[in-house]
Amino acid sequence: MDRFMELAMAEAEKGASEGGIPIGSVLVCDGLVLGSGRNQRVQSGSAIRHGEMDALENAGRQPAEVYGRSTLYTTLSPCAMCSGAILLYGIPRVIIGENRTFQGEEHLLESRGVELKVLNDPACIDMMKRFIRDNPELWNEDIGV
Amino acid sequence: MDRFMELAMAEAEKGASEGGIPIGSVLVCDGLVLGSGRNQRVQSGSAIRHGEMDALENAGRQPAEVYGRSTLYTTLSPCAMCSGAILLYGIPRVIIGENRTFQGEEHLLESRGVELKVLNDPACIDMMKRFIRDNPELWNEDIGV
Repeated sequence: MDRFMELAMAEAEKGASEGGIPIGSVLVCDGLVLGSGRNQRVQSGSAIRHGEMDALENAGRQPAEVYGRSTLYTTLSPCAMCSGAILLYGIPRVIIGENRTFQGEEHLLESRGVELKVLNDPACIDMMKRFIRDNPELWNEDIGV
Repeated sequence: MDRFMELAMAEAEKGASEGGIPIGSVLVCDGLVLGSGRNQRVQSGSAIRHGEMDALENAGRQPAEVYGRSTLYTTLSPCAMCSGAILLYGIPRVIIGENRTFQGEEHLLESRGVELKVLNDPACIDMMKRFIRDNPELWNEDIGV
């Protein structure tokens, strides 16, 4: 597994160990990590800090040219909110751990020129499968169902 | 002006008085305010707390049926990130103070069945015009330009 996806997985696993939703993300520019994060619904009672949003927030305020050279790694296919954030900031590449348990707005992102790479990594799939099986109500809340 | 848009405007004005970006938002369900907020880029150094996102965050974790009966008021046309959040949570109606100084993802929202009402209120337009004129770099940063 790519080392940045390993970092995203480590964030997801940290989230799981906190009783949270195991989705992690890392924002990378020029080979350096600008910020990493994990879903904060349980830990912070947050409705907006999905893994990707938490990574963006932890990366702090960045100029447009930095976002424009960045890659976002996320363990799970990005939902509408996180996809919208990717479009807002013009992040050109997103590496997705898996889209088997949930497929977000991949078509929208591709239609706007964002390059996607879906790994469908067995460890990412297994982590989300177990989480959704054991926590269906929490999962539905997180994706607005 | 509608009283909920007045609340959104009051949030925007509070943001301006803090040196922040003057965009405010209110989430309303069954005639009650669930949460209100304002852009927090300057005040909190936030890349994700646009006015709409701050209102959603301040409303806390809500079940899908609450979002599904809610209306989001915002002083400015919602960007891609905020529009994505509206889609994620299935918020069916958005009241927009103005879209003359910035038009966000209104077409995307309408294509997904979200009902929009654009007021183009002179006070909202004037507030943003003055802000953009006086703070072009901060404004561009906020919309990823």
